[in-house]
Amino acid sequence: MTMCSVVSRAKPVQRALALTLLRANTEGSSYALAESRRFCPGVSTSIYPLRATSRSYCSRMALTEGLLFRQLFELESSTYTYLLGDTETKEAVLIDPVLETIERDLKLIHELGLNLKVAVNTHCHADHITSTGLMKQRLVGLKSAISKFSGASADILLSEGDKIYFGKHYLTARETPGHTDGCMVLVTGDQSMAFTGDALLIRGCGRTDFQQGCAKKLYESVHQKIFTLPDQCLVYPAHDYLGQTVSTVGEERKFNPRLTKSLEEFENIMSNLNLPKPKKIDIAVPANLVCGVHNV
Amino acid sequence: MTMCSVVSRAKPVQRALALTLLRANTEGSSYALAESRRFCPGVSTSIYPLRATSRSYCSRMALTEGLLFRQLFELESSTYTYLLGDTETKEAVLIDPVLETIERDLKLIHELGLNLKVAVNTHCHADHITSTGLMKQRLVGLKSAISKFSGASADILLSEGDKIYFGKHYLTARETPGHTDGCMVLVTGDQSMAFTGDALLIRGCGRTDFQQGCAKKLYESVHQKIFTLPDQCLVYPAHDYLGQTVSTVGEERKFNPRLTKSLEEFENIMSNLNLPKPKKIDIAVPANLVCGVHNV
Repeated sequence: MTMCSVVSRAKPVQRALALTLLRANTEGSSYALAESRRFCPGVSTSIYPLRATSRSYCSRMALTEGLLFRQLFELESSTYTYLLGDTETKEAVLIDPVLETIERDLKLIHELGLNLKVAVNTHCHADHITSTGLMKQRLVGLKSAISKFSGASADILLSEGDKIYFGKHYLTARETPGHTDGCMVLVTGDQSMAFTGDALLIRGCGRTDFQQGCAKKLYESVHQKIFTLPDQCLVYPAHDYLGQTVSTVGEERKFNPRLTKSLEEFENIMSNLNLPKPKKIDIAVPANLVCGVHNV
Repeated sequence: MTMCSVVSRAKPVQRALALTLLRANTEGSSYALAESRRFCPGVSTSIYPLRATSRSYCSRMALTEGLLFRQLFELESSTYTYLLGDTETKEAVLIDPVLETIERDLKLIHELGLNLKVAVNTHCHADHITSTGLMKQRLVGLKSAISKFSGASADILLSEGDKIYFGKHYLTARETPGHTDGCMVLVTGDQSMAFTGDALLIRGCGRTDFQQGCAKKLYESVHQKIFTLPDQCLVYPAHDYLGQTVSTVGEERKFNPRLTKSLEEFENIMSNLNLPKPKKIDIAVPANLVCGVHNV
């Protein structure tokens, strides 16, 4: 862990007002039709005495005791922010917070009585500016975190296997380069939930044509670091452009139209996406390299 | 129950392409700042042997055994569609499906191997056209359902206390007039999840200035039929315009900026919202009165 060396005052950032026609899928991907095989691993999440729950539920919230969980959406960049808290100690972690929704998020944190310890980014985003830096100015004691391979400044620079604790819970960082060199997936201690950033999206994945993007690396990251999680592990991505909120590792292993292909086919798909350049990349990346707080 | 008397061929309906600047909050409401009291009922959702779980979790997925659950979002009308299924029998129910997202929803139902028994609308929507009727043409055996007070045709006309069964699970209908005369809230058998339609939104509520809207009725409906549910009961609304996905009854009882007021204050708030007329009301309401399938 290294302390953040960059804490400067943010100029007010104007809220982006315009929702564009069919929001630009800039960091994400197109969603080809998945194979149509029928699939459901079955469910057995229970309030009754413990029975075999492994490999037995579909898209159900994980059963981690004493965990508060909220999924939040930012409309302009189609980004999901996740709030996780320990309901006893009230310590909490925020994943991928967005500058435009900082007031909403702070209000919710306040209403729920949470003590936000860490704001972590799954990677250095190109499509939106993180609220991490500004949130640090608003919440005493809050620390920022990001992968040490992101090139970004933060209080906590994460490596493979590092844990972010909040109360009796923790998230474990898994390095998943490919979309960027500094991409990480954050997995709850019981492996019931994985926050996959842009490495794995629902029936899709992050693009690999800028910011150190590499299709081969991404393919290997997803197969080695995400598809090795339990089938029933819930997949919470950093983005969705189709109104989907959650998937499971088992589903993506079966139905992801890209990651079910061979490496060669995957590389071919990824090199032919022809996606437009993210609108905000020239602003967002420099800002996110310093926790979203800078003097532009 | 009455069989639907109106099953006609749908003309192709063009997908609405335009996302408007700051999506029009036509059926919903403005969101005043809630009070800033700290609140969290605590959590004890457990995979361990049953302990006192009542009043003990915040915004956690309910723990109903063998229940598959998906929350889906339609971007243009900001509508949430909910898919609930029994993981053993695969019988499923879909709440408030939207015409624009019928292909996404059918694909997911197919991939998850579900047998959709009932597509139910919480009310006769004014801001979007339901996919219920078209879905009936695509899925053999599917029945439509809506409140008998909606004025709409459907296979199943629901009254207070009626249950919609899927496998070993069921939803119970609670009549909650106010936004419209035919509004219903659907509550899971264990009262862990309530699908509140437009009666109760997260920190808001549906408007009451058209379609038999009545602020007094809505106030009484929410207080008598929703706020009497357990504090930890998850609130899943028909819409959200701020990227919020879920709340709890306890939170809304504490922080809803309208429903925490007196009836008189509430009526005053509701009569001064000055919301624009829903853009689609003249198309959507007639269509939804016949399951969204008609010969316009």
